[in-house]
Amino acid sequence: MIVTVTPNPALDITYRVAGLVRGESHRITEVVERAGGKGLNTAGVLTTMGHAALAVAPVGSPALEAFGADLSARGIEHVLVPTRTPTRRSVAVVDDSGAATLLNEVGSPLPDDVWTDLLTAVRGAAAAPFARVLTVSGSLPPQAPPDIVRTVVAEAHRAGLAVVLDVSGPQLLSALEAGPEIVKPNRSEAAATLGRGEGDDLPAAALARALASSGARAAIVSDGAAGLALATGPLALRAWLERPLQGNATGAGDAATAALAADLDSGGALSTTAPDATAWREALARAVAWSAAAVLQPVAGSIDPTDVDRLLPAVQIQETTA
Amino acid sequence: MIVTVTPNPALDITYRVAGLVRGESHRITEVVERAGGKGLNTAGVLTTMGHAALAVAPVGSPALEAFGADLSARGIEHVLVPTRTPTRRSVAVVDDSGAATLLNEVGSPLPDDVWTDLLTAVRGAAAAPFARVLTVSGSLPPQAPPDIVRTVVAEAHRAGLAVVLDVSGPQLLSALEAGPEIVKPNRSEAAATLGRGEGDDLPAAALARALASSGARAAIVSDGAAGLALATGPLALRAWLERPLQGNATGAGDAATAALAADLDSGGALSTTAPDATAWREALARAVAWSAAAVLQPVAGSIDPTDVDRLLPAVQIQETTA
Repeated sequence: MIVTVTPNPALDITYRVAGLVRGESHRITEVVERAGGKGLNTAGVLTTMGHAALAVAPVGSPALEAFGADLSARGIEHVLVPTRTPTRRSVAVVDDSGAATLLNEVGSPLPDDVWTDLLTAVRGAAAAPFARVLTVSGSLPPQAPPDIVRTVVAEAHRAGLAVVLDVSGPQLLSALEAGPEIVKPNRSEAAATLGRGEGDDLPAAALARALASSGARAAIVSDGAAGLALATGPLALRAWLERPLQGNATGAGDAATAALAADLDSGGALSTTAPDATAWREALARAVAWSAAAVLQPVAGSIDPTDVDRLLPAVQIQETTA
Repeated sequence: MIVTVTPNPALDITYRVAGLVRGESHRITEVVERAGGKGLNTAGVLTTMGHAALAVAPVGSPALEAFGADLSARGIEHVLVPTRTPTRRSVAVVDDSGAATLLNEVGSPLPDDVWTDLLTAVRGAAAAPFARVLTVSGSLPPQAPPDIVRTVVAEAHRAGLAVVLDVSGPQLLSALEAGPEIVKPNRSEAAATLGRGEGDDLPAAALARALASSGARAAIVSDGAAGLALATGPLALRAWLERPLQGNATGAGDAATAALAADLDSGGALSTTAPDATAWREALARAVAWSAAAVLQPVAGSIDPTDVDRLLPAVQIQETTA
């Protein structure tokens, strides 16, 4: 079972309009609300792929009911840590041409006792008999404890779980010290974490190498249609899809995280103490295929297993020297 | 005391952005939430002008806490009828140039028992010892009982209260049969209610006359910067501000409703059984001044008494023949 931790979830609200016009008034007749956030997307993908996942997230009382209802409807097991701090919203205004205009609230600071409750929930989930992997994904609320992700990694390791991190910035730097099994930022997050600006234009492979040298057992940097770059020990691989897909890139990274966690959980290629190049090729190919399958979905948080089967043979892999 | 009924309130959410760009992602660092809706604005204006008001509205559980907190902070007495149906949101995206892009949810149908609870709350409020006036303002949720406003008017009359209505469409047509003391739609609402399209371009005075002939004791049609047109019995008046003000027109109509209700409540010009032309001149002038004072406020729901004092002498009134 995979525990997915989402420290800063969002209530995803989608408004459909004929056309969005600045300065005008728009009548919204249809509102879609969903429990959003990268770790919840990962749990959703795992659930649709038949893996047992447990989503853990702090959720503010006004959104608590909507979150519980949406996650239950999607069959996603969850432990929501209640807080009086309202959960942030993320509003997507989608017009008839398909363009999505996003209004993303950054969220509010959580009180100390909610962080305590969240760690208690993480400990409880990690202690479950079949828990084998824990993921932490996405941003953190403002003023989060600076070492909270590292603390979660340490709790997971204490319970014998492997860890996959899709976080960035100072929280990732701090968490690297706890030796997470896999870190998976995207390219711009990795660059920002390592203090490199967009201008430096470091290749994903070099960023992965730098992260792997800083404490992660393995670092995978996602680079959009260019695929994934892995660095672990002396090994460096690059995996990508033969022909990139058009679609909804939101949630593609969360599906890659899900694939890696699923492999670790289910006795796959990575679940040995020192996975070899063959194991990593297999795991990376699956991560690219899950990620590509997510691009074909209209909303983040689910993939179609038949898409995965179809896309897997189209994944290209090669060893790199970065 | 004035009871203001808001059948379809909204949680007003304001996002500030540097510039709103279609298809782009915007990071929202500051979120302002307010209890919104025309009747709540009217109660707010009455409160800031020192009149006792009691706001009655159905509010869905996710927004109930935010509504109560905001109304309490603003000193607005309220009876919120709880429902599990989420209260609609109205998102205003305000950019650095001051342009406001509005995304207004239309709301969801309320279950029958909530309408029953709302009528019980209205009866309770109307039975309060000092209750003298009741207002109903704004839209109705989809699938509202077709005669709900007429029922509220009948309840108010049974308790001896005068009624000011700022509603439109079939609900206004139906409510006219109960003989409300004053109806106050704006010009396009009045035209739509009477089955006249924008193209017909009937003057506000003619629309007021038609509404007064259909059951309202007095009809006042607001026409933006052109002011108010009144028709009651044989009398027809027009009142407007010498020089129209630039500002925030949202809530101007709600302030006019507040002025009329305040007059009826406090033994003013209109509180005789058959107010004469002098009484109406006085009441209309005050309604124009309150309305203009609302234009000077950044948000709907309050006005500055010193603005009212300053603007009152600038109101022009003339008898018309419509």
